[in-house]
Amino acid sequence: MRQFRHMAITLAGMVALGGAPALADSAMPEPVAKTAEGLIAAGLADETGLAFVEDLTTEIGARLAGSPDEARARDWAVEELQALGFDSVRVEDFTIPYWGRTHESARVVGANAQELVITALGGSQPTPEGGLEGDIVRFGSLADLMASAPGDVHGKIVFIDEKMYKTQDGSGYGLAVRKRGECAKAAAEKGALACLIRSVGTQPHRMPHTGGMLRTGALGDLPAAALSGPDADQLTRLLARGGARVALDIGVEYADAAPSGNVIAEIEGTDLKDEIVLIGCHLDSWDLGTGALDDGAGCGIVVGAAKLILDLPERPRRTIRVVLYGAEEVGLFGASAYARQHAADLDRHVLASESDFGAGRIWRFQTNFGDGALGYADAMKRMLAPLGVTPGDNSAGGGPDIGVLRRAGVPVVTPGQDGQDYFDYHHTPDDTFDKIDPGAFRQNVAVYAAFTYVAAETGWDFRKSAAADTGTE
Amino acid sequence: MRQFRHMAITLAGMVALGGAPALADSAMPEPVAKTAEGLIAAGLADETGLAFVEDLTTEIGARLAGSPDEARARDWAVEELQALGFDSVRVEDFTIPYWGRTHESARVVGANAQELVITALGGSQPTPEGGLEGDIVRFGSLADLMASAPGDVHGKIVFIDEKMYKTQDGSGYGLAVRKRGECAKAAAEKGALACLIRSVGTQPHRMPHTGGMLRTGALGDLPAAALSGPDADQLTRLLARGGARVALDIGVEYADAAPSGNVIAEIEGTDLKDEIVLIGCHLDSWDLGTGALDDGAGCGIVVGAAKLILDLPERPRRTIRVVLYGAEEVGLFGASAYARQHAADLDRHVLASESDFGAGRIWRFQTNFGDGALGYADAMKRMLAPLGVTPGDNSAGGGPDIGVLRRAGVPVVTPGQDGQDYFDYHHTPDDTFDKIDPGAFRQNVAVYAAFTYVAAETGWDFRKSAAADTGTE
Repeated sequence: MRQFRHMAITLAGMVALGGAPALADSAMPEPVAKTAEGLIAAGLADETGLAFVEDLTTEIGARLAGSPDEARARDWAVEELQALGFDSVRVEDFTIPYWGRTHESARVVGANAQELVITALGGSQPTPEGGLEGDIVRFGSLADLMASAPGDVHGKIVFIDEKMYKTQDGSGYGLAVRKRGECAKAAAEKGALACLIRSVGTQPHRMPHTGGMLRTGALGDLPAAALSGPDADQLTRLLARGGARVALDIGVEYADAAPSGNVIAEIEGTDLKDEIVLIGCHLDSWDLGTGALDDGAGCGIVVGAAKLILDLPERPRRTIRVVLYGAEEVGLFGASAYARQHAADLDRHVLASESDFGAGRIWRFQTNFGDGALGYADAMKRMLAPLGVTPGDNSAGGGPDIGVLRRAGVPVVTPGQDGQDYFDYHHTPDDTFDKIDPGAFRQNVAVYAAFTYVAAETGWDFRKSAAADTGTE
Repeated sequence: MRQFRHMAITLAGMVALGGAPALADSAMPEPVAKTAEGLIAAGLADETGLAFVEDLTTEIGARLAGSPDEARARDWAVEELQALGFDSVRVEDFTIPYWGRTHESARVVGANAQELVITALGGSQPTPEGGLEGDIVRFGSLADLMASAPGDVHGKIVFIDEKMYKTQDGSGYGLAVRKRGECAKAAAEKGALACLIRSVGTQPHRMPHTGGMLRTGALGDLPAAALSGPDADQLTRLLARGGARVALDIGVEYADAAPSGNVIAEIEGTDLKDEIVLIGCHLDSWDLGTGALDDGAGCGIVVGAAKLILDLPERPRRTIRVVLYGAEEVGLFGASAYARQHAADLDRHVLASESDFGAGRIWRFQTNFGDGALGYADAMKRMLAPLGVTPGDNSAGGGPDIGVLRRAGVPVVTPGQDGQDYFDYHHTPDDTFDKIDPGAFRQNVAVYAAFTYVAAETGWDFRKSAAADTGTE
């Protein structure tokens, strides 16, 4: 059965290569295709989207969730989106637990005394006044820590020295990030003083990567920090020479409830205006960089794309909703708030997608549609082929803030960006505007403008099941 | 006359290409050539030199001139060099003015409030308790600052936004570094509060480059710091949007006299043991990195090369002296002390060279010999050609700590390293062991071992003038 379906799709794909539509209902109406072509050309010459991320990262800079900086960013975004002419520009408020660093340092003490470059993880406990000191116990992976005897860890500083590798699709991250989330919890259970991890990142610079850790409320289980790659190497070399003792000093501020919010702007539709095509990004960033790749670029891409559609002579039929989520980095709080606040009309969300993987060129287009709607996926893929986008499968996640919508049954797409370099900058001070390649950025704007417009104008039902398609249900 | 001489050399060079020696007295004795070949092969398999820099940068780390870390490095080096079997291992002490940073931060204040990444320059004045605040006035170059009206600068923070470009020979540095040396002095004369410069460096990371500034004693004329490239861009963008005000907070410690010293090790010669072939490096580093490229690598290269010669069945005729200079970074204090302490026998120094430009592959070999000794230069160049080293001219500088010897008439050579990447790491936290390419490093060891051995064993007089050569004087 499964095999048969696969064969059928393959045959349809072969037909598609010949130029004919894969399924009867997936032919894109000629005027829609023509307008999409125009949007692609306009996207490749985008100025609005790139200016949006340049201005955001320059005038606001870092935008830590729950901080006054994130609040300034919301005000700034509302003003910008209103000035661009969007409809119903607004903030949907919510509160989050707040965590921020105040100081952080680490130093090898004893015979090989020297500074180490670290950065605290989001949710790190503070160290006691004046810092703490402990012998280092090294593990090659989180699993090794979990399998260790408590006696090996008790009273020591755990160091997980697991490397992350570069991949085009960023798949190395999922594997490597587990230690960031769980080190403190696992180490605390065995009586450790603190947790250090090799940065979850792929560059050789002395620039550690921050990021969130598992926690309930603002604080996790231990003081926890990431070492830069070269510092992790150094600590490993020192351990090979007979051991290392480290003094760690981390100061934090935190609160149970701090303000955050989702910034929303719309292009109100016409005859199908109650149906929503959602394209999103997140407005918050970590505190170290200016959040250019993560995720100012994503906001610039979706705003730039939406602005091109807004400037068309006629509104598309469905409503396009741009959501600049708040507080993504610290636990997808904006996504949860959105799902809660819009619980009653999630079924009116016909398509959703988030740009949150930098500004690399889009190399494939994945969907997550009903079986009966795969012809629409093929039509979109054919449209995007001239942009160098290869057809992806039907297992799209949609983006971090979109997961909650996907799980609620909303069809999603993932325009897959080339992420080779993304984890060179992710969550570091180096995440700044100069790291965005304008050419690749504009290709993203073109892709988003095209599929968003098509989804809004055609009225296609991306949920359609194969059963519904054949009328046998 | 000049033209004629040039032609003569060119003709000699052509003969040399045919395999015959350029001048009668430059033929390398067969046994010397054979031993040099063996040293080259051994250099390309070096372990000692690479281990020396790995151990130095791991066990000591940063070695700021005049600090306890530099003192630890001297003790460490003496122990290592003794263990390697060198003769007359010793420290020649001197004192220097000491400067160290205690804290540093910069922040844009007002509507676009955000952190900037800076690092204080060596010799920076401290800011007043609690920091200082001022409007930024930007100049495209040091010359523009010097040409400005005092009224434009008075009471403000000067920002010199001059870029540095990559070159193979590092020549971009000389141009770009002037602003680091002179900004504070020039700005102070016009009544400025402080000086910020775009980092003297060539990488796009948020990692500023420290380095020395002009001063008498420990302190220069103003608080002064370098911004990373992305931060300089950011400040420039903010200024284009209507101005920027910056709060600067720099803390320093300093002293009029702190201990430093040159670490010396020798391979005592035989019948010409009073004649000295000096190869050097500097042992101190800036405080931010572990001083791997600047200049642990240089020390590893000269120690590795000397160790290969030490391990030969027979000692060469002249004495080989390895000098690990102290306090280079803060004003060539080790070089001055050496010249002072050895003033009486500088004429017994027959050749000198320092490795202080990282660990890039040597691509050319320059000399600075008497006219009558150019045949010896050609012989050395022919010997090094199999290592991919192209013949350089006769204008070698010899290295920073060697300048004082060269000016006193000591012949010098400069094995020119490929410095394309050197200023990506120079004076930053990123100057760490992982940035050394072992293959390129070993080619350096091979070059140093070969020319040092030849200079010590042949007894050639590199000072020889053309007049002396032809006997017409």
